[in-house]
Amino acid sequence: MTRTTPRYVPKAEFDNLFNTVCNWGRWGPDDERGTLNYVGPEQVRRAAGLVRSGRSVSMAVPINKTAGADNPRPAAHYMVQHFDIRSDLGEPQFSTDYLASEFHGDCLTHIDALCHIAYQGKVYNGKPASSVTSRGPTLQDITAYAHGIVSRGVLLDIPRLRGVKWLEPGEAVTTAELEAAETAQGVRLSEGDVFVFRTGHHRRRLELGPWNNGYDGEGKAGLHVETMLMLHERKVAAFFPDGDGETVPSNVEGVAYPVHALQIAAMGMACADSLQFEELVNVCEAEKRWEFLVMAAPLRLPGGTGSLFNPIAVF
Amino acid sequence: MTRTTPRYVPKAEFDNLFNTVCNWGRWGPDDERGTLNYVGPEQVRRAAGLVRSGRSVSMAVPINKTAGADNPRPAAHYMVQHFDIRSDLGEPQFSTDYLASEFHGDCLTHIDALCHIAYQGKVYNGKPASSVTSRGPTLQDITAYAHGIVSRGVLLDIPRLRGVKWLEPGEAVTTAELEAAETAQGVRLSEGDVFVFRTGHHRRRLELGPWNNGYDGEGKAGLHVETMLMLHERKVAAFFPDGDGETVPSNVEGVAYPVHALQIAAMGMACADSLQFEELVNVCEAEKRWEFLVMAAPLRLPGGTGSLFNPIAVF
Amino acid sequence: MTRTTPRYVPKAEFDNLFNTVCNWGRWGPDDERGTLNYVGPEQVRRAAGLVRSGRSVSMAVPINKTAGADNPRPAAHYMVQHFDIRSDLGEPQFSTDYLASEFHGDCLTHIDALCHIAYQGKVYNGKPASSVTSRGPTLQDITAYAHGIVSRGVLLDIPRLRGVKWLEPGEAVTTAELEAAETAQGVRLSEGDVFVFRTGHHRRRLELGPWNNGYDGEGKAGLHVETMLMLHERKVAAFFPDGDGETVPSNVEGVAYPVHALQIAAMGMACADSLQFEELVNVCEAEKRWEFLVMAAPLRLPGGTGSLFNPIAVF
Amino acid sequence: MTRTTPRYVPKAEFDNLFNTVCNWGRWGPDDERGTLNYVGPEQVRRAAGLVRSGRSVSMAVPINKTAGADNPRPAAHYMVQHFDIRSDLGEPQFSTDYLASEFHGDCLTHIDALCHIAYQGKVYNGKPASSVTSRGPTLQDITAYAHGIVSRGVLLDIPRLRGVKWLEPGEAVTTAELEAAETAQGVRLSEGDVFVFRTGHHRRRLELGPWNNGYDGEGKAGLHVETMLMLHERKVAAFFPDGDGETVPSNVEGVAYPVHALQIAAMGMACADSLQFEELVNVCEAEKRWEFLVMAAPLRLPGGTGSLFNPIAVF
Repeated sequence: MTRTTPRYVPKAEFDNLFNTVCNWGRWGPDDERGTLNYVGPEQVRRAAGLVRSGRSVSMAVPINKTAGADNPRPAAHYMVQHFDIRSDLGEPQFSTDYLASEFHGDCLTHIDALCHIAYQGKVYNGKPASSVTSRGPTLQDITAYAHGIVSRGVLLDIPRLRGVKWLEPGEAVTTAELEAAETAQGVRLSEGDVFVFRTGHHRRRLELGPWNNGYDGEGKAGLHVETMLMLHERKVAAFFPDGDGETVPSNVEGVAYPVHALQIAAMGMACADSLQFEELVNVCEAEKRWEFLVMAAPLRLPGGTGSLFNPIAVF
Repeated sequence: MTRTTPRYVPKAEFDNLFNTVCNWGRWGPDDERGTLNYVGPEQVRRAAGLVRSGRSVSMAVPINKTAGADNPRPAAHYMVQHFDIRSDLGEPQFSTDYLASEFHGDCLTHIDALCHIAYQGKVYNGKPASSVTSRGPTLQDITAYAHGIVSRGVLLDIPRLRGVKWLEPGEAVTTAELEAAETAQGVRLSEGDVFVFRTGHHRRRLELGPWNNGYDGEGKAGLHVETMLMLHERKVAAFFPDGDGETVPSNVEGVAYPVHALQIAAMGMACADSLQFEELVNVCEAEKRWEFLVMAAPLRLPGGTGSLFNPIAVF
Repeated sequence: MTRTTPRYVPKAEFDNLFNTVCNWGRWGPDDERGTLNYVGPEQVRRAAGLVRSGRSVSMAVPINKTAGADNPRPAAHYMVQHFDIRSDLGEPQFSTDYLASEFHGDCLTHIDALCHIAYQGKVYNGKPASSVTSRGPTLQDITAYAHGIVSRGVLLDIPRLRGVKWLEPGEAVTTAELEAAETAQGVRLSEGDVFVFRTGHHRRRLELGPWNNGYDGEGKAGLHVETMLMLHERKVAAFFPDGDGETVPSNVEGVAYPVHALQIAAMGMACADSLQFEELVNVCEAEKRWEFLVMAAPLRLPGGTGSLFNPIAVF
Repeated sequence: MTRTTPRYVPKAEFDNLFNTVCNWGRWGPDDERGTLNYVGPEQVRRAAGLVRSGRSVSMAVPINKTAGADNPRPAAHYMVQHFDIRSDLGEPQFSTDYLASEFHGDCLTHIDALCHIAYQGKVYNGKPASSVTSRGPTLQDITAYAHGIVSRGVLLDIPRLRGVKWLEPGEAVTTAELEAAETAQGVRLSEGDVFVFRTGHHRRRLELGPWNNGYDGEGKAGLHVETMLMLHERKVAAFFPDGDGETVPSNVEGVAYPVHALQIAAMGMACADSLQFEELVNVCEAEKRWEFLVMAAPLRLPGGTGSLFNPIAVF
């Protein structure tokens, strides 16, 4: 199947799109939860009602401690103490460790706080970018999600739809294709859902090795910005992609990471980054369903612009 | 109400107890999931069935970046970049951060891997303590819990039972008292449950300030070791305490942290540490129930002896 | 001996002082070495000529890994590997470690880069404060001192002059007192010298324990700002104090750390911080001289706003 | 010039060599300074007497924050605060930073503590390897060098002797070649000297880019183990190489890093690692001399198995 070049979006169209999907003020001037406001009691009950086999599956990439093309500053993980030290008090003995890491790495499964992105001097809800200094954010930090994300997850598996192992860098998934995947899998993204979006990014990584997926590298596959209209209309609460949802290079005139700008700054969407669904798809195929309970909780880190996390799907 | 001194346990009784609750070999010679094996499809469905109001509550203490009596090596959390840097590529701008921390701190909400504890040269399942070196564990690391913990949580709130704000350091909760709490709250710890154990440790911390709760300090309230028999018989899957479940000083002859030795080394129980239930108890009282869905997922960290995490209760 | 309250300096006088001692442009518009320019071949030879007994003495405080009143974010130092791991290749075995630390702590011996301080929007040489972003400084980083500081050190020991163990927090040393110390010790601060300034800060710390010496604490003893005229006229190249040279609280109207502003932003002086001279004074007394070769080299860290270091005196 | 394959050394010869150069007990059973004991007053005065032009030159590689073939776990260096934060107290403003790093990296200029190496279960002076645990060393840590290294440095520049830019990986420098370099440069390694040993390792790195110089990579040039006899007889105090002095692969039967075993475990020599002499050789050529004052001071880190440092040559 030959892929066409993604449609190029002029800046004026992008600005219109930004305004159309913008949720500033929708949940009050000081709201910090954004589209998670779509998750109400009904959504949580619906999600819990999907639990049947009890299988749970991680959607996180194991934390990578080795430098590589997409991991230039790998996490530092060291033992602090192991059983060569007997407690001064006798038994038992303890082993302990230490982890140091950035959050927003290209192969570190993490979730973004809304303060992670500013567009034209403003973060979500129209707050000034100056609310984030070298001391950290004064609003919209990751503790806005402290009580976790619990809702229905809907996987749209684009490589499955296309019959390929993965999308190639630079490819952009359109609204039509998302709808085709919905039809093929018998699901429909609805209010309060966690949109689990698979391009096969991690599958490619496993098979071909890590690659630099930034602007100075080979790029990556993601969503075409037009799909933001669909996510907005469907009232999607959260976005959990492999990759980070962006098509690199961008298809928008003069905007480098347009999906981040729209999802996080305009819509206030809870966006994760660098998940993997290789175990998940096996369970989905085995259970013949592409919806499940998602539960995810970032570390409760005051001032965090995000957090490493381990999101779980329960069937 | 006058508290009696906890009953002192001779070493021989402790050794018997160790053997009685020992699960080595129970789930095969190379099992690494221990008592999480009690959580089967039925347990997960039962837990999901508890979701009614959809409220979710964090049981984590906010990560504490300030040194204190129970936090001598506080987490280091720094901004890496904020909006003073415009992307070389234009909009949007990004803020990012960095976290460095041990896991097993006395006020850091975390979960232990089974390799965290060795007793008399052995870790859970009879494996040698030498399986853990300065390069990390070769077995029973935290990735054994990679797919998360999903089951019913049952809170036993001892200060509520006693009509006090918190238990004082050195107090040990007995089996009789756990059973009394079950009766008072109308719950019963059963196979596969997450035992959420409240001594009021964090409430005391909030009101009186942090204290050194180790052997060189004021100590802390916890479980009497006799309760391990009850947890074993009830087939409890996981233990989520404020504090860490230990009575300090110990009530066992010659064993400094006997609850860790029994729960982790003997039983292979999934044990968390330093949670807080101050938000949880408000919801329990409001909903008039002390059981709920628990979902918890450690970071997917190969070689981890534990992990910071943010466990969530869903009602 | 009763100490008088330090003379209070109105803002206008401070501004005059700033202009008087300002070295902006003195060594060219892009100079980054500031007063180290005073150290020429003659100064280095003079310093080398002081080497007679060959004794060398550290002026660094041992790196403190324990939180305390003046060390709220202690250095994290962990073993990475020790001899429990045999090399895959056989003998020998290796032990290795890891250190994580801020530099500008109140009990961490360090040297400041000139980019460490901005006054009214400008750093040394009139460069804009905006030259330092969250990615680090674009000029005046610590690599300006990459080739080390080698010159004569002259110790002025104020507690010795006064016959006390240490100066009390809040005390400010005047020009007259520095000159009296010169006379008493038979030395004279001259062009290119490293001014080693002892208030007994570390002695007090050793005897009374650490204290919070900031504005929210007990304060500290330092230099009166009037002494900057003397340092400027004498062409002092570097300043190595116990404490950091500041009197806290400040004696200058509306300026919190006036000595930093004058030394670093105005004069471009190489300023260290939190040294200790308890071993040094013993050698000085034994050798009956208060001048010696100083050699000091910050880590060669591109982008550093300073560096931990271990300055050495050679007699 | 065709290089011959280095002579292969049987294990029995290596063991003899170990015993011949072994300094255990030479300076007392609890000595921790090893060959630095060769540096007495005469040596320091001699070194100071070499100071003529006053030029000083760093022998450190700039700290490398980018992962690469010889830097798989790069140093983490972040800004903590910059001038976007006004002091609560007004002027001035401060910028600060944070560094986290291992010490013993292949492109991190550092010095080893004697506790860094164990051979056949023993560290220098015959102390047991068990003196180093996951809590760190109980003896021979880097604070044994707290008061710095001050002595004469003698550069032997092997590429200069050979008329090449650098030695190729796997080449081993013999005693005859060291003596030829002495003759060519008009210097002689003597008691208490710092042996500055240039293979051109860093020059190769600058020109060809970083390479993996370990056993799983391309290897590196170093000393033939026979040269240890010469260093022992000449009473060399310290060893400052580019690379780390080892020929990789090793030329000794069954010993992977034989130079480390001999220098550190047997002789107790102060050994640095991964220096660069590209600036140094320019000054040497300009001054037409290959001896100079060396001053070097590791961080004063209790428990350090080594330290990042910035060694300086003064002419």
